Amino acid sequence: MDKAQQDALKKAAGIEAAKLVEDGMIAGLGTGSTVRFLVDELGRRVQEEGLKFTGVTTSRRTQEQAESYGIKIVDVDDVDHIDVTIDGADEVDKNFNGIKGGGAALLWEKIVAINSNKIVWIVDESKVVDTIGKFPLPVEVIPFGAGHVVKKFEAKGYKPVLRLDADGKEVRTDENNFIVDLHLERIDHPQDLAEDLINTVGVVEHGLFLNMVDTVIVGDPNGPRVMTNGNK
Amino acid sequence: MDKAQQDALKKAAGIEAAKLVEDGMIAGLGTGSTVRFLVDELGRRVQEEGLKFTGVTTSRRTQEQAESYGIKIVDVDDVDHIDVTIDGADEVDKNFNGIKGGGAALLWEKIVAINSNKIVWIVDESKVVDTIGKFPLPVEVIPFGAGHVVKKFEAKGYKPVLRLDADGKEVRTDENNFIVDLHLERIDHPQDLAEDLINTVGVVEHGLFLNMVDTVIVGDPNGPRVMTNGNK
Repeated sequence: MDKAQQDALKKAAGIEAAKLVEDGMIAGLGTGSTVRFLVDELGRRVQEEGLKFTGVTTSRRTQEQAESYGIKIVDVDDVDHIDVTIDGADEVDKNFNGIKGGGAALLWEKIVAINSNKIVWIVDESKVVDTIGKFPLPVEVIPFGAGHVVKKFEAKGYKPVLRLDADGKEVRTDENNFIVDLHLERIDHPQDLAEDLINTVGVVEHGLFLNMVDTVIVGDPNGPRVMTNGNK
Repeated sequence: MDKAQQDALKKAAGIEAAKLVEDGMIAGLGTGSTVRFLVDELGRRVQEEGLKFTGVTTSRRTQEQAESYGIKIVDVDDVDHIDVTIDGADEVDKNFNGIKGGGAALLWEKIVAINSNKIVWIVDESKVVDTIGKFPLPVEVIPFGAGHVVKKFEAKGYKPVLRLDADGKEVRTDENNFIVDLHLERIDHPQDLAEDLINTVGVVEHGLFLNMVDTVIVGDPNGPRVMTNGNK
């Protein structure tokens, strides 16, 4: 599948998901290439159809995009609940365990998700996998002492790589932390791994989103396909 | 006990602990009023006795104090180990479970501690308690969504209070996060509480330091008293 085809699938998933946002709702808006299509469609509905909703964004770049369409964005602490959050994912398996954070926004994404009544992910079909872990697992780490965290991950065989930008500088998250990507290839026991990571001093959050999502909308060449999580 | 007496005990503990730092060592230097006396004494030994050691500090203010004495301070990631870390504590019980973070430096303190071969706390006798929790437990929280974390803590009966400075603004840690103090009065199950806190999305770290310390030096009117942790 070339990039144009993949983009078409992402766009189809984004347009489908935009239908879930109704007048008066508070909607969480994720981050990433698929979410861009979602926000474009929501922006179109705001401008052409007069849709009125309030957004809570999971990154500064989504906020900028949404505000450019005149979508009202408020801080997560200015709402007492979020009706639905629509976000992308880097991988998701049949048990609705996923990896997020390829775009370095996993912390805010998880904070918004945890405060949402309903979580929807929009992905192209390449993101649906049998076992998660081929996509490097992002871990958000406090810069102070990050080198020691990386060494501990190395000793555990987690194959950590500190994420750098094009200039060779450490990537900084919106909270000014580092991202360490774990090249695990496959994660057979995601709960155990999540527990180990969150108990590592210096780790702020990790990209494992385990059984959190309610609905996955998959951009499929035959039209958007919906996976519903019955165990949540 | 008035403040002058308490300061005398803190100073005695600080001077006693300074003896643990030897030529060539890498020493972690904590934060707080008792540690100030420690750093004063180490500075004196550097200047008067020619003591040579390298320090790793747990806050910007300790770094400034140490450097004012000409103590060489390096980043925690520039050393492969720390021989001994000397720090204060807000409370410690007979099982060597403690609370730290009254000075808002708990995150860097825990990162330095976890990378230290030996951990020593210096306290005045008022800090040694039967059950920890009278001292409000500091929790470092990501500002994004902090209001929701506070609400969750309230629902659990943790009696959270967002720490404010004299101007009524949120206190910011060295990593630019908020501090939420839990007014629990007593913590009967510190391990369970630690697990609950660290698994709360938005929590970076908490001030429970459970069975981490090797030695506690207590400033006592009869002379410094040493408590040695046999279970570590």
